[in-house]
Amino acid sequence: MAKKRIGVVLAGCGVYDGAEIHEATLTLYFLDRAGAEWVAMAPNIDQHHVVDHLTGQVVEEHRNVLAEAARIARGKIRDLAEVRASELDGLIMPGGFGVAKNLSSIAFNGAEAEVNPDLAVLLRDMHRLNKPIGAICISPAVVSRVFAQMGVTVTIGCDPGTISAIEAMGNRHQTSPADGIVLDEDKRVVSTPAYMCGSGIAEVGRGIEKLVSRVLELAN
Amino acid sequence: MAKKRIGVVLAGCGVYDGAEIHEATLTLYFLDRAGAEWVAMAPNIDQHHVVDHLTGQVVEEHRNVLAEAARIARGKIRDLAEVRASELDGLIMPGGFGVAKNLSSIAFNGAEAEVNPDLAVLLRDMHRLNKPIGAICISPAVVSRVFAQMGVTVTIGCDPGTISAIEAMGNRHQTSPADGIVLDEDKRVVSTPAYMCGSGIAEVGRGIEKLVSRVLELAN
Repeated sequence: MAKKRIGVVLAGCGVYDGAEIHEATLTLYFLDRAGAEWVAMAPNIDQHHVVDHLTGQVVEEHRNVLAEAARIARGKIRDLAEVRASELDGLIMPGGFGVAKNLSSIAFNGAEAEVNPDLAVLLRDMHRLNKPIGAICISPAVVSRVFAQMGVTVTIGCDPGTISAIEAMGNRHQTSPADGIVLDEDKRVVSTPAYMCGSGIAEVGRGIEKLVSRVLELAN
Repeated sequence: MAKKRIGVVLAGCGVYDGAEIHEATLTLYFLDRAGAEWVAMAPNIDQHHVVDHLTGQVVEEHRNVLAEAARIARGKIRDLAEVRASELDGLIMPGGFGVAKNLSSIAFNGAEAEVNPDLAVLLRDMHRLNKPIGAICISPAVVSRVFAQMGVTVTIGCDPGTISAIEAMGNRHQTSPADGIVLDEDKRVVSTPAYMCGSGIAEVGRGIEKLVSRVLELAN
């Protein structure tokens, strides 16, 4: 039996300006452990900004989302613009502020946010082909924006601002603990809050482990 | 019972110029899952160089090891120079080229390498206090250099050049698969080859899971 191929969308490398490293790494880990193949991808664009993760301050630097995401993928990564839904059996988006700053403008525009056009096409194509989407941390807000007014149910934990934004997009929010998942069976969207409300890597890992497992079950 | 406190030494953020992200993240994950507390640390020094992880090329940039390592630790990290062995119950060093380029000069000088002085003091103090040291990937070569002529037994998998260097340092090398560990019970040093010879994150994870478990058993 061929390995299931699951795309993993990375938003850079680091919680404050890119992909959340624990969420991204554990996604790859649980996929590989389950015998699936991961296909890492990121957009070939500049980061919105660069944050010094020691001080939390924005610094005067420029970094490329794809080149930084390549750190998490050990160089084994593709330009998001070149990946087609037809190649994949499922797609997972780890979180991190890069999802809200580089892959979309959720951090700045909430319910009115724009989403990277190549990512929006990929998400719509996955949905059209009835393939599952896993969304971790803040990523369910991006999924909600792309699928606005479709009544998709997701969780981002319990953050009131983001819940309001998801509802303003015409979708539904379901509260969940950090290590739980919410499944929209009809839309084939699985989500977990991870560090949106989790405080430790093991707790966050329990949710991601369940999400990966459910995405693989739905990937057929 | 108080949580066991295990130091985790990070060499930056990225396999080619810093800490190997999978090895570092899985170390934190297995520690937290086992109920231990991790104490991340890195030296406050410039990286030897910066490598574009997409192209593999060295680029004209400067990055700080502590600030980059803070990405893996989500900002929860300390200057290695300020951490004392007396605070810790054990110490683990994940791998990555940063271990051989930033924490030491193993990549350039092999058996004659220099080791960051604060790291050398910390390793010697851990040993003097009879506390366990876990070394992943290329890190056993640094441990070997600090404990030269002490006959410590470690593994870095099966890389002939590094094995020769370890033997030239007056220590012993034991071959191991990527997902195995080697324990020097007398010196309380545990090592695993990880990506020195492993090809996938789940395989590497099995070795790190065993190493973390053994370090915690030895930490009393």
